[in-house]
Amino acid sequence: MAEYPDESPLGGTTATPGGPALSSAIATRAATIMARCDELGAISEEPSRLTRRFATPALRRAMELVAGWCRAAGMTTWFDAAGNLRARYEGDGGDRRTLLLGSHLDSVRDAGKYDGPLGVLTALGVVEELYARGERLPYAIEVLAFADEEGLRYQTSYLGSLALLGEVPLEWLDRADEDGITMRAALVAHGGDPTPIAARIPSLPWGRDDLLGYCEVHIEQGPVLEAANAPVGIVGAIQGGSRSRVAFTGIAGHAGTVPHHLRHDALCAAAEFILAVEAAMRETPGLVATVGQIAAQPGAINVIPGHAAVSLDVRHPDDATRAAAARALREHAERIATARSVSLAWRDHYELPAIACSPRLIALLEAAMTAHGLTPRSLPSGAGHDPVALARRTDVAMLFVRCKGGISHNPAESVAVGDVAVALAVLSEFVRRCGEVSSDASVA
Amino acid sequence: MAEYPDESPLGGTTATPGGPALSSAIATRAATIMARCDELGAISEEPSRLTRRFATPALRRAMELVAGWCRAAGMTTWFDAAGNLRARYEGDGGDRRTLLLGSHLDSVRDAGKYDGPLGVLTALGVVEELYARGERLPYAIEVLAFADEEGLRYQTSYLGSLALLGEVPLEWLDRADEDGITMRAALVAHGGDPTPIAARIPSLPWGRDDLLGYCEVHIEQGPVLEAANAPVGIVGAIQGGSRSRVAFTGIAGHAGTVPHHLRHDALCAAAEFILAVEAAMRETPGLVATVGQIAAQPGAINVIPGHAAVSLDVRHPDDATRAAAARALREHAERIATARSVSLAWRDHYELPAIACSPRLIALLEAAMTAHGLTPRSLPSGAGHDPVALARRTDVAMLFVRCKGGISHNPAESVAVGDVAVALAVLSEFVRRCGEVSSDASVA
Repeated sequence: MAEYPDESPLGGTTATPGGPALSSAIATRAATIMARCDELGAISEEPSRLTRRFATPALRRAMELVAGWCRAAGMTTWFDAAGNLRARYEGDGGDRRTLLLGSHLDSVRDAGKYDGPLGVLTALGVVEELYARGERLPYAIEVLAFADEEGLRYQTSYLGSLALLGEVPLEWLDRADEDGITMRAALVAHGGDPTPIAARIPSLPWGRDDLLGYCEVHIEQGPVLEAANAPVGIVGAIQGGSRSRVAFTGIAGHAGTVPHHLRHDALCAAAEFILAVEAAMRETPGLVATVGQIAAQPGAINVIPGHAAVSLDVRHPDDATRAAAARALREHAERIATARSVSLAWRDHYELPAIACSPRLIALLEAAMTAHGLTPRSLPSGAGHDPVALARRTDVAMLFVRCKGGISHNPAESVAVGDVAVALAVLSEFVRRCGEVSSDASVA
Repeated sequence: MAEYPDESPLGGTTATPGGPALSSAIATRAATIMARCDELGAISEEPSRLTRRFATPALRRAMELVAGWCRAAGMTTWFDAAGNLRARYEGDGGDRRTLLLGSHLDSVRDAGKYDGPLGVLTALGVVEELYARGERLPYAIEVLAFADEEGLRYQTSYLGSLALLGEVPLEWLDRADEDGITMRAALVAHGGDPTPIAARIPSLPWGRDDLLGYCEVHIEQGPVLEAANAPVGIVGAIQGGSRSRVAFTGIAGHAGTVPHHLRHDALCAAAEFILAVEAAMRETPGLVATVGQIAAQPGAINVIPGHAAVSLDVRHPDDATRAAAARALREHAERIATARSVSLAWRDHYELPAIACSPRLIALLEAAMTAHGLTPRSLPSGAGHDPVALARRTDVAMLFVRCKGGISHNPAESVAVGDVAVALAVLSEFVRRCGEVSSDASVA
């Protein structure tokens, strides 16, 4: 608690369910973050809902607004070639390294107000607190506001962070959006510059040794923290995932004339598989497996389905566990097909390995939570985030904030101000402790 | 065998799997029926596939062709107001009643050659045999070739037979087809007459006492006879059916972020219901229950379905058994919803009672099969047929003919000539015995 000498948690004025009491100063900064989320939430391409795609005037307005707040907190700001907002708060020179914080400011269509902005504004809140105290840490802090994480406009993922690394796939530049505008043209119009991106020049000029790591605050986008009555949680890993298409082909037939023992109903096979996918989650702790799409053919009320296809999405923080679970599901599908004399077509079409968060940064987040009287809680990230890309260059960590009902990518997205206060307090503590341990090797 | 004094079954030249040996005369007539099915199958609205909708030039050409064959067999032919072909072979006057035989000549889109025409042509074959022998039965035979049973053009069912009864719903006349042509206009163009139809004047002028019944030969459109190695079977009842729409609403969520114990996956609930529907068939003999349609929302590969809706089609020859099975399925769906904390919306939108075939006519068909050395076999009709309508006016019966793979409503529809020979022999025997018992009451 050394960092808040005047603000004992016990004497604080803010309490959030499952969280500690915090000072009124933290509460005030959290209220500011909430108000800024509202203000950013009103900056949209569309009048009646929040949509802020990459390289649009709406995104640029949001970026400029945040840049102004950053400059008012003593930071230097600029935009890189991809249109990412960069805001740097220099250290006192005792440590030449840089700590990266941030999140993204682009959104999905008809988005909520917190997915992305909350992380940028909480990072800014930490710097504002330092600046208000006239305090410099030994190392610099750079707040990153990524211009494209959701990939709505060009079906890209992590474009902003890949531009930092100089690793944007070249073919992305020539992709056209739904209005036929190429990414290259959009960048030029938006004030970005496709040339260094095409040349694969990283806009982040440092190597691993120059960086203390990257930490992102983000809403959980799931119901785990709410169910656990915890305001925040530490991400252990960003889950890997695989996606498959699973199709059963039986024999279509008249619903009135084919008796039970002569049917080869493809939809019944698919139904059995869907329940096997659900059961796999009970068998393998930490596994999430989902059938989100289904189609039955010919799809008439009075015809036994001859064909049924489903999607399969399997995720786990540990790649080997995920691969074993997916293999077991495939074998299960084969057994279903054999038992029902239907045929099975299984096609894997996507696989992304898990990204482990840095044990060093996790330990620092745990220490920061403990310092605030919170019990550290770990959970996987089921959704992807910019650390997936940034982990190639530096240690990464994420602090999740409880969100109401686990709802995200939806205007109903909701975060409690008390939880934001906890996230701000924990991130602030984390930032102050960040120079303590220099590498993951020293934690083991 | 009295009717075929010169043709002992044992000395016959035709045999079909599971059937008796039959005379070469029967075999020749069966071959003619097959050739005529081919000939009619080439008369279509579309060049590359068989489609013969109600009140089209193609259907009229098919009707005229059959009418010519009927007249050549000593029958009087005419078309009624609905465009049904009527062909009458008078009796010798000993019995003033009329026996109705027949089926329909309209088709579904991309149809097979036998669904409908086989019944008309087998009935014609019976009359041709009588006419060739110069024989008259005590009662008249009227062969009916219905102009609309499938209801493809106007989404009507049993239009042809309802016109016989004077029971065509008035609103049907103003329905428009996909080209905007009303049924009224199509009738005029086709040589029919909407006026008596609108006036609900029956084109069949007789009451129950004037009729000996209606018997229709039809392909099974299912796999039961093939599985039983039987060429023909007697329909005990045309199954009643009910249709419902069953929707589960849970909570949509991110496939990566919502762990198993916090999910309310509507598609998993639907999958459990689909398997319950399948299991119901094992529990209730004779029940067929089918989920033919399914839709999951929002339908993204990475989103847990919040909504899943399925169709349900339940059929059984006994209405009470069917109703009990449907009720049990609804209760099962409610238990699934409760256990999963999802909501259930169940909507019944269609119900048709079962039509029992006449015990008197069934006994005559059994006697006819036994006379040919066949073991009478009963099966329900899962599909609907014109007897559903005609049962309001007279006793009805159906003789099903084995079809390959149970396939129908498809150009792959296939019937063996040997099975057609058996159907012709059985129907001929039935027709000769038809005056023996005068009412169902005398059979009990």
